[in-house]
Amino acid sequence: MQTQHIVRAYDSDLKYLASRIAAMGGHAERMVEQAVQALVTSDLGLAKKVVEDDAVLDEGQREVDEKAIVVIAKRQPMADDLREIIGAIRISGDLERVGDLGKNIAKRVVAVTETQQPLSLFRGLEALAELALTQLKEVLDTYASRSMDRISFVRDRDDQIDAMYTSLFRELLTYMMEDPRNITACTHLLFCAKNIERIGDHATNIAETVYYVVTGQQMPPERPKEDKSHKVMLEDLVDD
Amino acid sequence: MQTQHIVRAYDSDLKYLASRIAAMGGHAERMVEQAVQALVTSDLGLAKKVVEDDAVLDEGQREVDEKAIVVIAKRQPMADDLREIIGAIRISGDLERVGDLGKNIAKRVVAVTETQQPLSLFRGLEALAELALTQLKEVLDTYASRSMDRISFVRDRDDQIDAMYTSLFRELLTYMMEDPRNITACTHLLFCAKNIERIGDHATNIAETVYYVVTGQQMPPERPKEDKSHKVMLEDLVDD
Repeated sequence: MQTQHIVRAYDSDLKYLASRIAAMGGHAERMVEQAVQALVTSDLGLAKKVVEDDAVLDEGQREVDEKAIVVIAKRQPMADDLREIIGAIRISGDLERVGDLGKNIAKRVVAVTETQQPLSLFRGLEALAELALTQLKEVLDTYASRSMDRISFVRDRDDQIDAMYTSLFRELLTYMMEDPRNITACTHLLFCAKNIERIGDHATNIAETVYYVVTGQQMPPERPKEDKSHKVMLEDLVDD
Repeated sequence: MQTQHIVRAYDSDLKYLASRIAAMGGHAERMVEQAVQALVTSDLGLAKKVVEDDAVLDEGQREVDEKAIVVIAKRQPMADDLREIIGAIRISGDLERVGDLGKNIAKRVVAVTETQQPLSLFRGLEALAELALTQLKEVLDTYASRSMDRISFVRDRDDQIDAMYTSLFRELLTYMMEDPRNITACTHLLFCAKNIERIGDHATNIAETVYYVVTGQQMPPERPKEDKSHKVMLEDLVDD
């Protein structure tokens, strides 16, 4: 009876952590969506809102960390549950960073809207953001469902995000070369694109954490890339 | 006798974690130093070495994570020691990212050396890297000594790093506007500068973790900045 009580209380601790992560995930997705929307529509009010919204994720991360430590100290969990709790700490860290990246995009809206930029650049950024957000949503669904069915798509989509980022990078450089008046705004757009590419990386980190939580194993490494470090291409300049 | 034995074994676990972190820290510092050196001296061989060296930090992080989980599961630590272990997990995560950022600088060496860039830009990058590395070294010393004496310098130096980054950012934009042939190389230098600024942020993260490990409290927040989100300056475009 006592044991059952402990088990139930423990389950509710783990559920609490999972529900905080789910809420943080939804919040982070919304911030990134709105930051890109603010950028594309030159909506300074929306940009300001996104900047303010970031505090929620900072607070969420602190809560998850503190709760996790209390749960470990109180329940003395065994390996499986311990992985679950350590996983929550890691994922909340990634989501907090996604929020920072969204906030950083929002902060750049003013600088970008000072000059008119070609519509195609914004379309490119929107498409990149859509891909990164799909990645994030799917990874968070995987965390919620603990189903590994779709986990193999994660690396492929990360490669797509990197390829799309590289193409946008080239396009932005071209605009800068065409007219020096584009340089300042395009530089900020370059950082926005980079931020979105990084959001994809954080989604991939989360997928790796979920894999570890569920299986107890490290996710199989990426297919080894050909060693091109002496002839570095733009393609190689995404972080990893 | 049995308790003493457990305590000693436990101490040696914590010491193992601290020594792995110290080794990761030294490795990360060296990678960043050498990446910047490779950039400034156009040393492609050194750049290649830095790229390869990153695997050591990935492995270090995995080791720390796995050891931490084993220690928690086996020793069932109380709050103080638990903070110590969770702290090790966080710090190794920051150091792994510092390595990624160093690697990313090294990968850009080829693209930057394709065109000749003014010496002053490299001097600026070196100075920025020196400041960020001083921050990282001091923070890792604080972790090793557990002395909070110098922790108050961390936020001030982070502000200095941000200010120096902003000034370098402006200088790079100016060179790009002066001559479109500089755009590609200067864009890569912009990302290098940004990476170094981020290394400073990771050092600050580590300081916050050390503060938390030692005191059990969150480090007092930054002095609140004036709300300028509607008139965003370049100064605001550093991540936080």
